[in-house]
Amino acid sequence: MNAHILTIGDEILIGQTLNTNAAYIGSKLIELNINVCKTSVVGDNEKVILNEFKACFDKNDLVVVTGGLGPTHDDITRSCVVKFFNTELVMNDDVLKDVNQIFSKRGRIVTKVNEEQALVPKIANVIRNSLGTAPGIWIEKDQKIFVVMPGVPFEMKEMMDSYILPKLNEKIGVPEFVTGRINLQTTGIPESYLYERLGDINELLNGAQMAFLPSQYGVKLRVTATDKSSDLVNNKLSEIEQKIRNKVGRFVFAKGEETLEEVVGRLLKERELTLAVAESCTGGNIANLLTNISGSSDYFERGVVSYSNASKVEMLQVNEDTIMEHGAVSRSVAEQMAKGIKSISGTDLGLSVTGILGPTGATPGKPIGVVYIAICDNITSIVKKFLFGEDRILNKQRATQAALDMLRKHILGIQQDE
Amino acid sequence: MNAHILTIGDEILIGQTLNTNAAYIGSKLIELNINVCKTSVVGDNEKVILNEFKACFDKNDLVVVTGGLGPTHDDITRSCVVKFFNTELVMNDDVLKDVNQIFSKRGRIVTKVNEEQALVPKIANVIRNSLGTAPGIWIEKDQKIFVVMPGVPFEMKEMMDSYILPKLNEKIGVPEFVTGRINLQTTGIPESYLYERLGDINELLNGAQMAFLPSQYGVKLRVTATDKSSDLVNNKLSEIEQKIRNKVGRFVFAKGEETLEEVVGRLLKERELTLAVAESCTGGNIANLLTNISGSSDYFERGVVSYSNASKVEMLQVNEDTIMEHGAVSRSVAEQMAKGIKSISGTDLGLSVTGILGPTGATPGKPIGVVYIAICDNITSIVKKFLFGEDRILNKQRATQAALDMLRKHILGIQQDE
Repeated sequence: MNAHILTIGDEILIGQTLNTNAAYIGSKLIELNINVCKTSVVGDNEKVILNEFKACFDKNDLVVVTGGLGPTHDDITRSCVVKFFNTELVMNDDVLKDVNQIFSKRGRIVTKVNEEQALVPKIANVIRNSLGTAPGIWIEKDQKIFVVMPGVPFEMKEMMDSYILPKLNEKIGVPEFVTGRINLQTTGIPESYLYERLGDINELLNGAQMAFLPSQYGVKLRVTATDKSSDLVNNKLSEIEQKIRNKVGRFVFAKGEETLEEVVGRLLKERELTLAVAESCTGGNIANLLTNISGSSDYFERGVVSYSNASKVEMLQVNEDTIMEHGAVSRSVAEQMAKGIKSISGTDLGLSVTGILGPTGATPGKPIGVVYIAICDNITSIVKKFLFGEDRILNKQRATQAALDMLRKHILGIQQDE
Repeated sequence: MNAHILTIGDEILIGQTLNTNAAYIGSKLIELNINVCKTSVVGDNEKVILNEFKACFDKNDLVVVTGGLGPTHDDITRSCVVKFFNTELVMNDDVLKDVNQIFSKRGRIVTKVNEEQALVPKIANVIRNSLGTAPGIWIEKDQKIFVVMPGVPFEMKEMMDSYILPKLNEKIGVPEFVTGRINLQTTGIPESYLYERLGDINELLNGAQMAFLPSQYGVKLRVTATDKSSDLVNNKLSEIEQKIRNKVGRFVFAKGEETLEEVVGRLLKERELTLAVAESCTGGNIANLLTNISGSSDYFERGVVSYSNASKVEMLQVNEDTIMEHGAVSRSVAEQMAKGIKSISGTDLGLSVTGILGPTGATPGKPIGVVYIAICDNITSIVKKFLFGEDRILNKQRATQAALDMLRKHILGIQQDE
């Protein structure tokens, strides 16, 4: 089954909004072994939309469209669907009930534009929307499927998960060939070094495929294999994974889509360890990522964003003289911050970060990008110095990732790089 | 000038990576009044790439491609360019120097795969890459422009800003019609309410166009006008802006792309106010956003992520009995947290957030989504209760946005909604 993902909206085209919808839909379709051939974005223009509908529907078995179903005048996708399939709009009572319910739940009055959301193309199956007012549209014609969902990401996701994916899965049945993928996420090693360490790629892969996906968080390795059964695919992938781990294993922090903060959270939970964090330059980013995870209150006790020197002294027991002598960005202050936050919190582990992210703040001997990260437990403390780049936000993300990876290695007893 | 933005890479197609490049390029091209007609994504497949090159180059004056220029075997864009333009690869000495310099700066050895990055299509002008090893490609043929950049976002951005945009600007000269846009960012009011409050849209716009762009952060209003001169466009846009502000002004937190944390930071700086933040459920997200801004140490003094009850009592002077009596998620605790963080920090303002983000943690009378936000200054303190939705991450973002908007209104003396 070949698929095209189409996103409608000027805001995506002109870059005001990131196209997270196409990414989500793509990731879910390939899990069903659907071949995503192309994704495209067009603006809120009837002629362009109708042309794109035709091009996509001619060339594919499945077209998934998002965007332009809202209640305001700039939402024209529904009327384009009506024209393209030569059908008409009819009022759907179930949807009207849904719309009324959503507003009454929030204690708000239903307006006329909201009620009009219950008008749906006659030819379509309606996909109810439990999170918003615009219903989704499912049309089957000429052995092909044409699906339209609202552009609001969480509404779209709910429809994908509860309706579209189960229905597609049913239609597909058992395929002749199976494609499987694994992702191994590495951090702390540049792409070209990783590439060289892996040696002869063709020998390693033995017919499978591998992609290197670098970002400020590290390099993701995606291995793809195709064979006649899931078992054969899984065996092949396991074999390759083992070979990769033998060569660069300690840089691999996760298999699959688990984030580094999820890995660290899981490790802390498994080992019943608690953590407190003192952040200077990362400004709360580490605490923020750790607390994105439900259940993090089991291991994350507290955090301090000690942006001022006074806060380092008052809240983290950092010695004022040490700041005077070595500066707030120094090995000694990092170590005292980690020890201080651990001591006042009574946790098993203390983590701290202090650095200069830029664009301003460099001093002689301390360029932009210099960051110290410290970890301490009941027995020992370690401090590492890093030199990142010039960009403030990238540096924040890199420092956060490096701190979490130091923590991962520390918990697992893996040697830290120097 | 009609443009197509093409992104190459399986990781984008299958949703492992968000297409931030297309968004950035789109936003920059429309600033030059270039008409971005469509964006598309295809995978790392030679036949598909060559077909897409042809389709894009036939229909547009400008094609901007990113992705697939890296050093590893899965990067095939450069060889596709060579085939498409029927040219060959030649070694470029300047690029070779750049590559060597990047590695020596970081104290690393240049490998053979890195050196091969200096091979460029003979037909092309080379775009030097100051942040990475893959050079960009600029080709002019048949009065059309074909540009290729690496997929790594910060390398691509640097090339856009320093080379491509200035060069495109030169080529375009003075256009016959000018299109202008303004964005007014609102928060704290649902899309349909905003729509109704604005009244007759056609009368309001008088020939201009408007789009409503909702997200968890609020609704962005984008107004677009076209006329014969910049002056005429700007007059029209100013007039519409004034009308919108008259109707829904207090919900408008920014014009343009300024984020709410930037607005709050600017206001604090202008008024020489300092701020300390105590976060429970937002887990450091507010501190993180505020410290993303360079210069934030002028006004952001410190933050505490008081995840445990002990940390609220020990670090924020919250009364233990109040927690016992009302619970950690309550109006009283929120107020004490704001007063506590202000008092220990000696700042002009204290901000606090406590709530239940889900998916677990609901108690009788306190459903998931309930959040209390408090602000205090030297004279007064205010606490507001919010009821957000079911999703943990969305709730974190909504609570953060609501807290920052309360702060904005407080500083500007705008009445808070009840």
